[in-house]
Amino acid sequence: MISPRTPPGVLELLPPDQAAMRRMLDTVRRSYERFGFVEIETPVFERTDVLLTKTGGDTERQVYFVQSTGAIENGSPPEMALRFDLTVPLARYVAEHQNDLTFPFKRYQIQRSYRGERPQRGRFREFYQCDIDVIGRETLSFRHDGELPAVIAAVFADLGVGDFTIRINSRTLMRGLLESLGIDVEERQADILRTVDKLDRLERDGVAAALRGDGVPAAVAEAILDLAVVRRVGATAAIAHLDAIPPANDLVRQGVEELTVVFSTLEALGVDPSVYALDLGVARGLDYYTGTVYETVLDDHPEIGSVCSGGRYENLAGMYTSTKLPGVGLSIGLTRLFWQLREAGLVAAGPTSVEAYVTVMDDDGVRAAMRLTTLLREAGVNTDVAPEPAKLGKQMKHADRLGARVALIVGEDERANGTVTVRDLAANEQFEVAERDVAEAVLTRIRSGAS
Amino acid sequence: MISPRTPPGVLELLPPDQAAMRRMLDTVRRSYERFGFVEIETPVFERTDVLLTKTGGDTERQVYFVQSTGAIENGSPPEMALRFDLTVPLARYVAEHQNDLTFPFKRYQIQRSYRGERPQRGRFREFYQCDIDVIGRETLSFRHDGELPAVIAAVFADLGVGDFTIRINSRTLMRGLLESLGIDVEERQADILRTVDKLDRLERDGVAAALRGDGVPAAVAEAILDLAVVRRVGATAAIAHLDAIPPANDLVRQGVEELTVVFSTLEALGVDPSVYALDLGVARGLDYYTGTVYETVLDDHPEIGSVCSGGRYENLAGMYTSTKLPGVGLSIGLTRLFWQLREAGLVAAGPTSVEAYVTVMDDDGVRAAMRLTTLLREAGVNTDVAPEPAKLGKQMKHADRLGARVALIVGEDERANGTVTVRDLAANEQFEVAERDVAEAVLTRIRSGAS
Repeated sequence: MISPRTPPGVLELLPPDQAAMRRMLDTVRRSYERFGFVEIETPVFERTDVLLTKTGGDTERQVYFVQSTGAIENGSPPEMALRFDLTVPLARYVAEHQNDLTFPFKRYQIQRSYRGERPQRGRFREFYQCDIDVIGRETLSFRHDGELPAVIAAVFADLGVGDFTIRINSRTLMRGLLESLGIDVEERQADILRTVDKLDRLERDGVAAALRGDGVPAAVAEAILDLAVVRRVGATAAIAHLDAIPPANDLVRQGVEELTVVFSTLEALGVDPSVYALDLGVARGLDYYTGTVYETVLDDHPEIGSVCSGGRYENLAGMYTSTKLPGVGLSIGLTRLFWQLREAGLVAAGPTSVEAYVTVMDDDGVRAAMRLTTLLREAGVNTDVAPEPAKLGKQMKHADRLGARVALIVGEDERANGTVTVRDLAANEQFEVAERDVAEAVLTRIRSGAS
Repeated sequence: MISPRTPPGVLELLPPDQAAMRRMLDTVRRSYERFGFVEIETPVFERTDVLLTKTGGDTERQVYFVQSTGAIENGSPPEMALRFDLTVPLARYVAEHQNDLTFPFKRYQIQRSYRGERPQRGRFREFYQCDIDVIGRETLSFRHDGELPAVIAAVFADLGVGDFTIRINSRTLMRGLLESLGIDVEERQADILRTVDKLDRLERDGVAAALRGDGVPAAVAEAILDLAVVRRVGATAAIAHLDAIPPANDLVRQGVEELTVVFSTLEALGVDPSVYALDLGVARGLDYYTGTVYETVLDDHPEIGSVCSGGRYENLAGMYTSTKLPGVGLSIGLTRLFWQLREAGLVAAGPTSVEAYVTVMDDDGVRAAMRLTTLLREAGVNTDVAPEPAKLGKQMKHADRLGARVALIVGEDERANGTVTVRDLAANEQFEVAERDVAEAVLTRIRSGAS
């Protein structure tokens, strides 16, 4: 006999947890569609040469290759590999189908990605990503950079996970500001931003020392740190700060202009100003993205880190096409987020999708139970029914374990009276209604939420 | 530059097709939940030893193995492989988590599976399966075998793909009937049923000749063929036929009893009797399943073959656990079905999820457009908005390409009047409404369907 084991590093859920995960996935999808994004799905695997355009590096070491038996026997190199994110498949999709798409192309994609991470708590080899990106052809308005955080604000408000802040910065602005401090070599700028990014873990003094260790003059290090702590919540404060930045060079002017469009758009869209901020301390992704960058933190759970990150890239698919395709995107790592929220007690398992359970008291009651079941299902109630008569207590326990809100009884008396007994398992009370009223009574209980 | 190519043998969809596919997936999910099934998801890969409990055979030749770079460098055999169906992962899941599940366990699972098929039209290497199964511990009522086709009847009615028939048979009954004709060796029975299964392609005479060629006496061959053409539509006719079968042996008695429960349950659940039939010609899967078997055909498109098949297995997970886990299940191969329906013109691409498109006439109109966009989104309308002013014709064309039902205009006049112009792109008409009435007007148009 073979021991049944889930592969290591994956998050496999029991039904009540899966139901909670499904609600989160549905919430994200609903907001993405509400904001006018359309769905695409790409295959789980891509051709190896398409997926791994940059050879070497961490990414390739973590890639899972896919081979058929035949290919392994031939000793041929793997022709396919599992996607490690949704951005490379998006680039391939847009480049391949560009003549059939309409630009700006606002797409969402909710699928799993795969990375051969070393197994550890909270790190997953298979994980859901919920991505939105807007891809332009040749140009892309920065208003899209303002619309993206509006989507994320709607998602996190709907998820109901407490207060959150979407932190917004610009690589262009940061490069301009560093240049104005005399640091004008791009790699040097990137090194410094990586050091600044440690502000979360090291204290200000620690980062200052690290910068000085890197050869940054003390006064410049202090100036950099003064920048990195700038946080202005809401459009009004953010734009006022941007307006006051001296236009020291072209990069600063461009960064200020772009960010001003971003915050004006957020304001025009009426997004709650308390949920987003200009934050010059956002340094992650600055060597990957080329313009706006985003991070999202849960205000009461900073230890979780960023739960939604992204940014702008000036050319999405330069490796596949000569068409310039600028883009801006955001990604929620939902498997990790779900796991973290569950650990933090912010997401509860269940209830499952089962709402009502119809019990069966005796052989004569089977037909009445089946008829009632169909009546409820046709009224839109997710209903399960006992397949055989059994003790009522046992059936109630089963209904409860399923996560049903109500259990229904059609015993001999009820059948004689044309009634049904409805037991509200959450409120722990029961009542009898005429069969013709039962669907409405059940729907009322379900809609009332747990009591 | 690398040519961007979708891997061979996968069905990658453009957004309007993806929207149609999503509607089908949602329809299936809704019915599955309505009937009290709860969702599980399993990882795309399983440990090789867990997945491939039966070595050799077609299945293994079609399996995709998964390896990290490290494993390939070490030359170690692949530790993981992509699932080739949802049944083996279900068996592993139930065996592994049996102490945390409640039985009968009614689960649904909508995920993709992978097989290294030789690429050809309508055959896919990656395909959605939409499975429902009911798993019992030690025993499982045959009422579940009656409930499953009721679910599928609801799904196919909702999919709106025309008339269909769920054909129901029983391996137990067929074995009993063959035994009563003097064919009592199980392998011989299986061979004969495989030959009978060719009735679709060969004429009756051809099958009779094939049976005689296999050494079946001519009279017995005729008797078998008389059985195989039995089709009784609806519960009343099916049960009448079953009642009239002489109880020649234990297998016949058992098969008749089980099928009688199946058809009585379908009747008690009020399923339209025209959509299901007792069909003794269903022979496929009879060497895999151990009791009830199902096939579903679209009445006007028999060339498509079975669009939903399944059956009962007396022990789901004997390779993983000593607990006896009988089950019954049905599976819709949705990728193949979608492709076939599209080929047959029974499913149309689009509309996408975008319902409304807000145009922008000039720089002064950006804020009004953004405000209107938010108003519509908050009313539940999936709304996209132009990022920059552009010619109205160009914006209308974009709205139309997106698949939006309405486009909205807030030009200088509208802003002065506090109105919005709504253009119904399907009805090709437009009207002006007060801004406070615009959401209701748009929702009315969207709900009215294409006109």
